[in-house]
Amino acid sequence: MALKLYGIPMSTCTARVLACIYEKNIQFQLVPFNLAVGEHKQPSFVAKNPFGVIPVLEDEDLTLFESRAITAYLLKKYKEQGEDLLRLKEGNLKEEAMVGLWTEVESQQYSPATTPILYEYFFAPRRGKIPDQKVIEDGIVKFQKVLDVYESRLSQSKYLAGDFYSLADLHHLSFTLYLMRSPWVSLISSRPHVKAWWECISSRPASLKVVQAMTPAEK
Amino acid sequence: MALKLYGIPMSTCTARVLACIYEKNIQFQLVPFNLAVGEHKQPSFVAKNPFGVIPVLEDEDLTLFESRAITAYLLKKYKEQGEDLLRLKEGNLKEEAMVGLWTEVESQQYSPATTPILYEYFFAPRRGKIPDQKVIEDGIVKFQKVLDVYESRLSQSKYLAGDFYSLADLHHLSFTLYLMRSPWVSLISSRPHVKAWWECISSRPASLKVVQAMTPAEK
Repeated sequence: MALKLYGIPMSTCTARVLACIYEKNIQFQLVPFNLAVGEHKQPSFVAKNPFGVIPVLEDEDLTLFESRAITAYLLKKYKEQGEDLLRLKEGNLKEEAMVGLWTEVESQQYSPATTPILYEYFFAPRRGKIPDQKVIEDGIVKFQKVLDVYESRLSQSKYLAGDFYSLADLHHLSFTLYLMRSPWVSLISSRPHVKAWWECISSRPASLKVVQAMTPAEK
Repeated sequence: MALKLYGIPMSTCTARVLACIYEKNIQFQLVPFNLAVGEHKQPSFVAKNPFGVIPVLEDEDLTLFESRAITAYLLKKYKEQGEDLLRLKEGNLKEEAMVGLWTEVESQQYSPATTPILYEYFFAPRRGKIPDQKVIEDGIVKFQKVLDVYESRLSQSKYLAGDFYSLADLHHLSFTLYLMRSPWVSLISSRPHVKAWWECISSRPASLKVVQAMTPAEK
C-alpha cells in the first residue's frame, strides 16, 4: 500500500516532505486536504496529529507528524533507493554527524529567524491582519546574522554538511522558496556563497517539482 | 583521547548533552568555561561554534555544536554501550521513527513554549531586566495546550515514544528541571500522567547526576 501524505504543497512543512519524497522516488498518495474548512481541526485528523497541523504521513499502521521526523524516517526506510541524504550508506559517522548538525541549525536558527518575516508578509494579510513591521525588521536583523554564518560556512564547502547534498540543505528549500518571492531576495543574493548554494539546491529536479507543486495552490 | 565538552552544567543545552553522556557511560572532559567574561564570544570559541553559544563537543578532528545534534551523534557512536536511546540495536524502524517524532515535538513544541517563560523568570532578572508578565502569561497558555497533548499521549504509553525510555524523553529533562524550580510546578503536577512520567524520567541515576551537576552552579 502506498504511503499517504496529508497536506497541501503550498505549506512549507508539507513541501519539505515532498522534496524528500521526490529525491527518493517514493510512491505515495497526496490526500486532498482542505484547510479553509478547518479539516485539520476535525477529530478524525486530530486523532492522527494531536497538534492539528499538516503534514501527517501514514505508512500502514504507523502515523507520523512533524515534517522533520517524517523526512528522517523516509530516508531510513528507503535507504537503498534515490539520494542518500543522511549518508547512511557511506557508513561515515562524522559525515552523518555533520548532516545532523546543519539539520539542527536549520531547525533552531534558520527557521525561527525566517518564520516571523514570512508569517507577517504572506500570511497575516490572508487572515485580515496588517503585517507588523517591527516583527519583520527584528526578524531581518536576526536572519542577517544567521546568513553571515552560512556565508562563511559555504565558503568552505559546497553544501552545508560538506561537499555533498544532504537533508540539511533540503530542509531549507521550502522557507527559502517563500523568501525568494518576498521583497527580501537580496538577503540571499547579496551573499555570493549563499546565492550559489541556493541556485544549486533549488535547481535540482526534485526541488523543481516542489516549486511546480507549490505554484498552482498559490493562485 | 577523551571527548571534550565545552559548556556549563547549569545551561539547559549543556545539561541535555550531559544527561546523554551519563546514560551512555561515556568518558569525557568538561572544559571549564566562563560565560561571565564572554568566553563564548572569543574568536577561539567562535571558530568552534560560529553562533557563539555552548555546548560544543570535540571528538578528535570532529567539532559539533547544537545540543540535539551532539546527543544523536553520541548515541550512534556509542551504540554498543549504555542505554539504546534511539532504538538502533532493536532494528525496529517504527520505534526509531516514534523516537524521532517525539524528539521533534520537544524541539518544535515543548521547548518553544517553555523557553520564553523560563527566560523571563530566571534569566531576565540576571540581566537587570524586569520579567515581562505578558510574555510569561502567553507562554503559559501555549504551554498548557502542549501539555494537554502530552497528558493524552502519556495515558497511552509510559514514555513519549512508547513503553521504553528514549532520547525523546531525555531531551525534556533540562528545561523541565528549571520549570520545576519555578512558580508553575502545577502545570506538571496537575496532570497525572505527565507528573508520573516526570517523576520517572527525573529519578533515573543519569538524571540525578545532571541535577547534582546543575546545583552548585546556581549558588
